[in-house]
Amino acid sequence: MMSDNAAFGDRLAQAVTDKKSVVCVGLDPRFEQLPSGLRDAAAASPQGRAAAFSQFCREIIDVVAPLVPVVKPQAAFFEQLGPHGTMALAETIEYAHRKGLMVILDGKRNDIGSTAAAYASAYLGAGDRSAWGSDALTVSPYLGADSIEPFVETCDSRQAGIFVLVKTSNPGGGLLQDRRSEDGSVYEAVANLVTQQNADRLGTSGYGPVGAVVGATYPEQLAELRQRMPSAWILIPGFGAQGGSAADVAAGFDDKGLGAIVNNSRHIIFAHARPEFKESFGDARWQQAVEAATRQMNEQLKR
Amino acid sequence: MMSDNAAFGDRLAQAVTDKKSVVCVGLDPRFEQLPSGLRDAAAASPQGRAAAFSQFCREIIDVVAPLVPVVKPQAAFFEQLGPHGTMALAETIEYAHRKGLMVILDGKRNDIGSTAAAYASAYLGAGDRSAWGSDALTVSPYLGADSIEPFVETCDSRQAGIFVLVKTSNPGGGLLQDRRSEDGSVYEAVANLVTQQNADRLGTSGYGPVGAVVGATYPEQLAELRQRMPSAWILIPGFGAQGGSAADVAAGFDDKGLGAIVNNSRHIIFAHARPEFKESFGDARWQQAVEAATRQMNEQLKR
Repeated sequence: MMSDNAAFGDRLAQAVTDKKSVVCVGLDPRFEQLPSGLRDAAAASPQGRAAAFSQFCREIIDVVAPLVPVVKPQAAFFEQLGPHGTMALAETIEYAHRKGLMVILDGKRNDIGSTAAAYASAYLGAGDRSAWGSDALTVSPYLGADSIEPFVETCDSRQAGIFVLVKTSNPGGGLLQDRRSEDGSVYEAVANLVTQQNADRLGTSGYGPVGAVVGATYPEQLAELRQRMPSAWILIPGFGAQGGSAADVAAGFDDKGLGAIVNNSRHIIFAHARPEFKESFGDARWQQAVEAATRQMNEQLKR
Repeated sequence: MMSDNAAFGDRLAQAVTDKKSVVCVGLDPRFEQLPSGLRDAAAASPQGRAAAFSQFCREIIDVVAPLVPVVKPQAAFFEQLGPHGTMALAETIEYAHRKGLMVILDGKRNDIGSTAAAYASAYLGAGDRSAWGSDALTVSPYLGADSIEPFVETCDSRQAGIFVLVKTSNPGGGLLQDRRSEDGSVYEAVANLVTQQNADRLGTSGYGPVGAVVGATYPEQLAELRQRMPSAWILIPGFGAQGGSAADVAAGFDDKGLGAIVNNSRHIIFAHARPEFKESFGDARWQQAVEAATRQMNEQLKR
């Protein structure tokens, strides 16, 4: 493990190396899909559901902490439960850190100036450095460079990172992202912004604090974007449930096997409901299904 | 007042007509800028600051409730205080409703599928219909149509609205938004999406649940976008502190004086610090400065 005071890009490189894994486990607690034991025991109130989310995430973290470098809680599912959910999110992040995991909060925040700085202050910086204490936050770029810079400045002072949405995994993402002008597409313009922001911020690993989100569902663009953003960690969603394969994500890595992490949420955290694991584990041994699915994905990505 | 069960577009039209005002007061509680009495009395903890934010917003709401139709809390400043801040946000929204104001939450949320639906469920729908209970939410469009639709579906079931970022007021907004392909610019593509989403959803006022954010700092584009989105309420930021004038926003309105609301945050809520009000009111009578600034803006926009 590296010191918490090392830069984000270097800490992530160290964590990937230490764990020998490029898997990011997405913590997307959807109440209706929780294992039946947790669902049945939860009181029918926001507090009750928030407690179930906390327990579900804690048990996942216990299983995956030795196997992967990083988890990615999805803010939306916690926020759905109101302020109680936001407390469960803070508890989950703290628990993940206690177990030696890095945390990327998927909140897709975005705003300008002092408002962006307020979001950065809320979420970025492990330990007591922010209210929620995540190592990194996903950020949406529609507002332009002056919406990204306040986040990057907070990354500088808190050894944190951001992942800017560049080319997302969903079918509708192209409507804006693929629009092409004389000097290239929208997503290429965002990729250039990512590279510019990292320019004076490279760590000893060669990676800076500003990462990018590029979907596994677009392998050609992933290869192209790897070249365009040589200093950016790439967070790759869309593996598994959304259809991306190990071959699809291969182009995201540098020649040392660094530079990308591959997220999987549903196929890991709800593995007990997958046909291949349902019979062996099912609801009652859902934690073992999580472990089997995580090990399976680690293996798939080692090839 | 209209029934809470009327569609969002119609409720906003009624509120603007009833209050004879198109002003939206932005609730952006920055701790360092609070009137000194509130700042000095706040305990130096997230709870203490959250209590100060609640009180500040309540007192503003007391002053502006008879004068304007709608307030717009900025989620970032509440979130900066952690879970306690998110409770203060919920209290503020509830208090605004109790005083007869509509509430647009400025959270710029965005995601796809069931994740977008979770955000919509968290924030959209007054009363007990959601955890935070706002009438509308700002939404960022980088992810495309499949990121907007889940929000619109929740609008349908909860008589709520969204405001999609189209052409924002900040200098850097053009980097993505103004990029022009053969079939038009990015912001025009987003405007077309807004119009499409409203198509089967027009209320008796002629306005649908899907609004748009267009900055006062781009008056030409505002005029063009008014034509391109005839069924969309336009939320216009950038008036006052950011430089937009009454002449700049005129093109946002239809011929009945509806179809747009003009936001002002800093110049109203921190009016006690403005040179023109500082001497008459100052910190001690900051509420009267808020009232004077609100009345002044109402007058400017009536011309």
